[in-house]
Amino acid sequence: MVLVNTRNPLNIGAAARAMSNFGFLHLRVVNPFELAFREARSAVGAARLLAHAEEFKSLEEAVADCSLVVGTTALSRRDPQHTVRDLQGGAPVIRKRLTTGRVALLFGSEKRGLSNEHLSHCHWLMRIPTREEHRSMNLGQAVAVCLYELARDKKSSFAPEKLSIAAAGDLERLTSLLLSALQASGYVKDSPDNTKSRSAAPTEEKVRRFIRRMNLSAADAELLVGMLRQILWKIKT
Amino acid sequence: MVLVNTRNPLNIGAAARAMSNFGFLHLRVVNPFELAFREARSAVGAARLLAHAEEFKSLEEAVADCSLVVGTTALSRRDPQHTVRDLQGGAPVIRKRLTTGRVALLFGSEKRGLSNEHLSHCHWLMRIPTREEHRSMNLGQAVAVCLYELARDKKSSFAPEKLSIAAAGDLERLTSLLLSALQASGYVKDSPDNTKSRSAAPTEEKVRRFIRRMNLSAADAELLVGMLRQILWKIKT
Repeated sequence: MVLVNTRNPLNIGAAARAMSNFGFLHLRVVNPFELAFREARSAVGAARLLAHAEEFKSLEEAVADCSLVVGTTALSRRDPQHTVRDLQGGAPVIRKRLTTGRVALLFGSEKRGLSNEHLSHCHWLMRIPTREEHRSMNLGQAVAVCLYELARDKKSSFAPEKLSIAAAGDLERLTSLLLSALQASGYVKDSPDNTKSRSAAPTEEKVRRFIRRMNLSAADAELLVGMLRQILWKIKT
Repeated sequence: MVLVNTRNPLNIGAAARAMSNFGFLHLRVVNPFELAFREARSAVGAARLLAHAEEFKSLEEAVADCSLVVGTTALSRRDPQHTVRDLQGGAPVIRKRLTTGRVALLFGSEKRGLSNEHLSHCHWLMRIPTREEHRSMNLGQAVAVCLYELARDKKSSFAPEKLSIAAAGDLERLTSLLLSALQASGYVKDSPDNTKSRSAAPTEEKVRRFIRRMNLSAADAELLVGMLRQILWKIKT
C-alpha cells in the first residue's frame, strides 16, 4: 500500500493499523510531512509495520517494482481518463494480479486526493461505492474498507496468470522513450532539452496513461523499448 | 447504529462520517462521555447526522424498538455464549431483517468493547475477520467496514466500462505503419520497397501479434496511428 502526501499522523497510524488487521504488511509512503510520519511511527497498534515502512521521494520510485498500480478516488467531480472499477469489481482483479507480482494501491492526501500526475501512473482507478450526497471518506476508513474487501473471499481460488506483467519501472522507461520520440519527430512541440512548457506536463501524463492502458507483458515492454530506441536513434541521426 | 460508552469524540465523528458515506442515517448513543459527544457534534462531514443523533441513558432503552440486536466483537479471548457470525455471513441476515423492521448494530467502547451485560441484549454477535495476531480494530474503521459490507451488493451487477474496441482494420493499418517505421529505422532489415525476403513474413506476423496483444481501444488505436505517422514522416525526411 502506498500513501501519497499524507498529512495527518493519525491517518498514517490508522492506515497502518488496518493493514495489520487485514494482513497487508508492506507500507510505502511518498513525501509525507516529515513530522507526521515521525509521530505516526510512535502510534500504538502497528508499530512494527510502521517501523518497516519505506519512504520515497516520488511516486515513480515507490511503484517501480509493481506490475499493477491502482489509484483510489472518490470521483466527486472529475470525468476521469481512466477505467474506474467499483471496489467489489476491482478487488478480484487485484487479488489475481497479486499471485504473480506486486500491486500498489495508492491513497492520496486527505485534502486533495491523488493529483492528475499521480493518477497518470495508474493502470486503473478504484472507488468505494458511497452515497452520492457524501462521497468523500476519511482516509483511515477508506483504507480499512479496501483492505477488508481485498482480504474477503480469500478462499476463492484463482488460476495463476501465465504472463509476467511489465513492472511500473519498465513502463516509465517506455513512457520516456516514446515521449522523446514524439518530441524528436515534432508530434509533441517541446524539445526534450527545454524546460517544460505549459503543455508539457499534460502531454507527459497523456502518454503515461496511454502506455499503461496497453497492459504490456514484461516481454512486450522490452520489445517495444527496443523498437523505440532504434527509431529514436534513427530520427536523431 | 448504536455506540455504547464511546469515549473519544474523534471516534464518534468518524463513525458518523462512515454512516453518512454508506447511507445509514440513524445514530443512537448510549451514555457517551458528555464532553466527547458535544465535541463530536461539531465534527466536519456528518454534522446533520450527529445533530439528529438520539441519546439514551441505557442500552435497553436504545434498542427497545428494534427487532434485531447485533453486537460487534473482536472475540480475542472470550468463548462466547452467543452465535457468532462473520461479517460476510451476518450482513445478509441483517439486510433481510431491515426490510421488515429496525435493526440495532452495537459498537462498544474503545477500550473494553461491549460488556457481558451489553452482549446479553444481543440476538447474536458479528465479527470482522481480521488477522489472528492483530484482531482489535479502530472503532471508526470497524464501523466503516461493517457498513460497507451492509451496503455492498446493493447493485451486485458490475458493468465494466464500455470502451469501443479497435476494429481489425484499424489494427492492420497500425501493423503496417509500425512495420514501416521499424524498417525505415533499421530495426527490421528489409526495406518496404523490396520484395519480401525470407525473414520478412515472420517479422510481420510478430508485429501483428504484438499489436493485437495490446488490446487497444478504437481511440487509442487512432492515437497510435497519429504518432507513428509523424515518426515515420520524420525518419524519411
